[in-house]
Amino acid sequence: MASRALKYYYDLLSQPSRALYILLEQSKIPYEKCPVALRKLENRTTEFKETINRFGKVPCIVHGDFKLAENVAILRYLSRECPDLPDFWYPRENLARARVDEYLEWQHTTIRAQCAQYFLYVWMTPLLGMELDPAKVERLRKNMADGLDLFQRVWLEDGKKAFVAGERLSYADVLAACEIEQPKCAGYDPREGRPQLAAWMERVRQGTNPYYDEAHKILYKFTPKEIATPTVK
Amino acid sequence: MASRALKYYYDLLSQPSRALYILLEQSKIPYEKCPVALRKLENRTTEFKETINRFGKVPCIVHGDFKLAENVAILRYLSRECPDLPDFWYPRENLARARVDEYLEWQHTTIRAQCAQYFLYVWMTPLLGMELDPAKVERLRKNMADGLDLFQRVWLEDGKKAFVAGERLSYADVLAACEIEQPKCAGYDPREGRPQLAAWMERVRQGTNPYYDEAHKILYKFTPKEIATPTVK
Repeated sequence: MASRALKYYYDLLSQPSRALYILLEQSKIPYEKCPVALRKLENRTTEFKETINRFGKVPCIVHGDFKLAENVAILRYLSRECPDLPDFWYPRENLARARVDEYLEWQHTTIRAQCAQYFLYVWMTPLLGMELDPAKVERLRKNMADGLDLFQRVWLEDGKKAFVAGERLSYADVLAACEIEQPKCAGYDPREGRPQLAAWMERVRQGTNPYYDEAHKILYKFTPKEIATPTVK
Repeated sequence: MASRALKYYYDLLSQPSRALYILLEQSKIPYEKCPVALRKLENRTTEFKETINRFGKVPCIVHGDFKLAENVAILRYLSRECPDLPDFWYPRENLARARVDEYLEWQHTTIRAQCAQYFLYVWMTPLLGMELDPAKVERLRKNMADGLDLFQRVWLEDGKKAFVAGERLSYADVLAACEIEQPKCAGYDPREGRPQLAAWMERVRQGTNPYYDEAHKILYKFTPKEIATPTVK
C-alpha cells in the first residue's frame, strides 16, 4: 500500500460510502480523503467521469493509477492489497467468507434497493418542490418493511445470530446497517417493531464506534431527533 | 471437493443458473445435477426453502451440509474449494480480479435488473392472460437499451476490449452474456445496432461452447427463430 497513494472518493450521505469510510478509519489504513458532494452533482461532471470513476458514482478509489468502483469490489481489493486489514472485516475462513459474500450479493436488489428507493422518493420529492403520492409512499414503505422483516428473520435468525455471518462482525453488517440507517432520515424508524434488528444495529454501532457515529453525523442532522441514534423506541 | 457431494440446483431458464452451469460443465467439476422447475414453482415449496435455499431461489448449491445461494458468492466459493478451477474464470491476479469483481457488483442493478425486468414483463404478461401496457413496454425497453449501450461503451470500450476484464474471458462475461440472451426470448435482439456487443457475445459463445449452446437450448426454443443464436443481424 505504502508505495502508492490510496485516494478515497465518498460522500457521507451515501450509504456504501459510509461503510467503506468506517472500514478505512477503524483499520487505520493510510488514505487520502476526497469528499465528493453529490448534492452539488460533483460526481456527474465530465472531469470526474474521465479521471475518477467512469460511472459517475461514489464510493470509488484511485490507487496509484488503478481506478475501482463498487464498494464490495473495493472491499475485496483492499483485503488483498492490505495484509494488515483485520480479518473480521472479510474473513479468510472459507465458510464465513462465503456467508459474507452471500449477503453482499443478496443485498443489492433487496435491502439496498428497498431502503434507497424509499429514502430517495420520500426525502427528495418535497425538496424538488413536488408532491408525494401517498399510494407510492405506501408501496415503497411496505416493500422496505417486508425486506427489513426478512433481514431480521433470515440473516439474524430472529436474534439467534449476533451478526450476519455468525458470531463476528463483518463488512456485511456495516454495509447493512449503513443502508438501514438511511430511511430514518425520511422519518421511518427501521427499529420500531423489530427488537432483534434494533439490538443488532446497536451491536454494529458499538463494534465500530467512534467511526460509526462520526460517519452518520451528517445524516443524523437531517433525521428527526426522536429517531436519531442511539435512542431506540 | 471429492469427499463431499456438490449438489447444484438450477433452472436453465434462469440467467445466472446458466452461467454457473457453463462454468461447472466446462471446468469438469464433479457435481450432481438437481434441476428445479421454476415454472412449476418448485423453488417456492416449504421443503425447498427449509432444506435447500431459504430464499426460495435458484441457482444455489448444497456442498456436504453447507448451503449457499447467490451465483457470484458460489463462484467465489468454488474458486477456493476447487483448486483445479481454471484461473481464467476468476483470475487470481489482483487487478484482473478487481475488474471482474467490479462488473459482478455493478451488474445487479443495471444489466441484470434491466434485462430481467423487460423479459419478465413482456414474456410473462401475455402468459398470465393479461394485456401489455405499451407505455410500460417502451419504458422498460428504453431502460434496457440504455444499459446495453452503456455496457458496450464502458465495459467493451466500443470493441477496444475483447472481454469485460480485458483480453481474457472470465465469469463476468458469461454472466453478462447469459443475462443479455434473455430478452431475445421476448423478441428483443440486443445485438441489433450494437456490432461490438454482437461480436463479444459470439466470442463468449465460442469460448464456452458446446456448453453455451447446450445451456441456452431451452431458452432458444422460446425465442423467435430469426434472432436465436448464432444468426447475428
